[in-house]
Amino acid sequence: MVEDFPVPETRVLAVASHVVSGNVGNKIAVFVLQSLGCEVSALNTVQFSNHTGYGQWKGSRVSAEEITDLYNGLKQSYLDEFDMMLTGYIPGAAAVNAVGAIAKELQGKTESAPGTFFWVLDPVMGDNGRLYVAEDVVPAYRSLIPYADLILPNQFEAEVLSEVKINDMETLKQAIRTMHEKFGIPHVMITSVNLESTGLFPDHLCVVGSTMTSDRKARLFKIQFPAMDCYFSGTGDMFGALTVVRMREAVSKTPGLMGVSSWVSEDSVDALDLPLARAAEKVVGSMHQVLSKTLESMKAALKPAANAQIGDGPDANQSQLVRSKASELRLVRNLSCLQNPTQEFKAIRI
Amino acid sequence: MVEDFPVPETRVLAVASHVVSGNVGNKIAVFVLQSLGCEVSALNTVQFSNHTGYGQWKGSRVSAEEITDLYNGLKQSYLDEFDMMLTGYIPGAAAVNAVGAIAKELQGKTESAPGTFFWVLDPVMGDNGRLYVAEDVVPAYRSLIPYADLILPNQFEAEVLSEVKINDMETLKQAIRTMHEKFGIPHVMITSVNLESTGLFPDHLCVVGSTMTSDRKARLFKIQFPAMDCYFSGTGDMFGALTVVRMREAVSKTPGLMGVSSWVSEDSVDALDLPLARAAEKVVGSMHQVLSKTLESMKAALKPAANAQIGDGPDANQSQLVRSKASELRLVRNLSCLQNPTQEFKAIRI
Repeated sequence: MVEDFPVPETRVLAVASHVVSGNVGNKIAVFVLQSLGCEVSALNTVQFSNHTGYGQWKGSRVSAEEITDLYNGLKQSYLDEFDMMLTGYIPGAAAVNAVGAIAKELQGKTESAPGTFFWVLDPVMGDNGRLYVAEDVVPAYRSLIPYADLILPNQFEAEVLSEVKINDMETLKQAIRTMHEKFGIPHVMITSVNLESTGLFPDHLCVVGSTMTSDRKARLFKIQFPAMDCYFSGTGDMFGALTVVRMREAVSKTPGLMGVSSWVSEDSVDALDLPLARAAEKVVGSMHQVLSKTLESMKAALKPAANAQIGDGPDANQSQLVRSKASELRLVRNLSCLQNPTQEFKAIRI
Repeated sequence: MVEDFPVPETRVLAVASHVVSGNVGNKIAVFVLQSLGCEVSALNTVQFSNHTGYGQWKGSRVSAEEITDLYNGLKQSYLDEFDMMLTGYIPGAAAVNAVGAIAKELQGKTESAPGTFFWVLDPVMGDNGRLYVAEDVVPAYRSLIPYADLILPNQFEAEVLSEVKINDMETLKQAIRTMHEKFGIPHVMITSVNLESTGLFPDHLCVVGSTMTSDRKARLFKIQFPAMDCYFSGTGDMFGALTVVRMREAVSKTPGLMGVSSWVSEDSVDALDLPLARAAEKVVGSMHQVLSKTLESMKAALKPAANAQIGDGPDANQSQLVRSKASELRLVRNLSCLQNPTQEFKAIRI
């Protein structure tokens, strides 16, 4: 039986956190990648009992030395051949630098074969106007962005990297232009933009993406989707894993592009015809379906009767625990959302 | 869209090793469980770069204290509700005892609701006549077996636990009877039996299983399958994960059995009608398909031209590295083997 996967055989090195319970970091990214047919090497940067949104957790971080050591373990047994790399949460500046050194080395190995290694970097630093990593992580990421092929900052992280305060669509475009120019980063996708003055439908968010031209000019598109009145942890990690697969799929459908450095389309290609736009449409489609399913389950789980046990407990912050548990992404039994996104969201010109 | 899974919603705590590259331990067990629809909490007992069959690896073990700590992290946030538990490789006697304490506690919580928690224990100690764990791990496992619901020893581990030397079908049956009697373990499945005098077809192995009666008598069956002239790492872990799902599936199809302690069928049920036999048939079907696919890919990978890079390297033991890499289980792109096993292998009477 021949199975149907969106990508040819693809070896991905995924570097992110691991949680015993729940669906964030590598716990969700690895499953998404595997379900879509990728062979994944999973380097876990922490092992925590649960994600930090619960307000309490146990477990430990993996040190920068251990990250390097694990990579050296791969190298010594010739297990360091990768087509793509996805990096998510990395604990601390030293560990960010250790992961950066791995990416640079993998890139260096393929210098004579453009397009054979592609690094998707999610610069996990903060959200909603607030850093949640140490301050020295910011310059560590800034120094690495020039080596990445595609970055997935949220709105706040885009501000931090570009040093452009995003107030409206004009400053958002300016932030993306700045990242292309300053870092030479070929592909940028800002994963959830929420601005008053962006001309969005009410209660909508958007993803804004761009692939630069040969002279580092932006080619911008946006995709609108309905906002949900709820915060879900792990969405960035799922978005990153889907982007890895859908970007490779879109590029592999464009004759010749897989052999071009960083998979940058020719200057004649319009924003709406970019493989990044095609990828983003499918990513947003899957995300929206999984989040809709999660919201449904969450509403059922938050009915008071379902939480009698937890409600009786001694914890100070019961409602945070209840909500965190109820809002864990529901992916395992909704696999068709990954495999066959409805694609109801289309890239449009900005 | 309603998706088709063999089991109702099932929360599994999976405790085993994690490797960055390759498919052993939790790296394969978690994917098998998730692909078949289970919500998995994955407690990783080590993080190594690759499995130890390569002869070299980097990374570190998780201590007994940290295992306990991670579990306490789950408890404090009410994330310790599980329907099933699967335990595989655990590094050292102290860690085995720590995992045992978790299993006992989970079991204790459900004492008033028989059948609502089921522990599948793979007593990873050694293979082919040789222990590969410290000697004090053996008594640690012996003391835990009475608390498990189903154990999955290989032939050597069955000898170690039962203290019966297995030379032929008669001593094999004696080993299983001894484990039922001595430990009160309800379900035993010996995962690969290779005996001259078992009446097997040439070049065949078998799985031998039994569910005890109310007076601890064995109900024995075997399933024959073709042997492959190759050693694959991770087969025990994949076998365990499949057993979790297929046992729950078979039991859920037997009216009333899910509410019986340890899912033990009534004494009137014949060996060949046991849910364990139904489960084993599907497990063996999936295993055989995945191993066949792996063997095909392995033969292609071992053609000399495919390994020019590795052949030029400085390592002493090149051929071990090449073989280890080539024999990694090929699961990700062969998912239909999990979901729709051909079931060509039938349980037969011993």
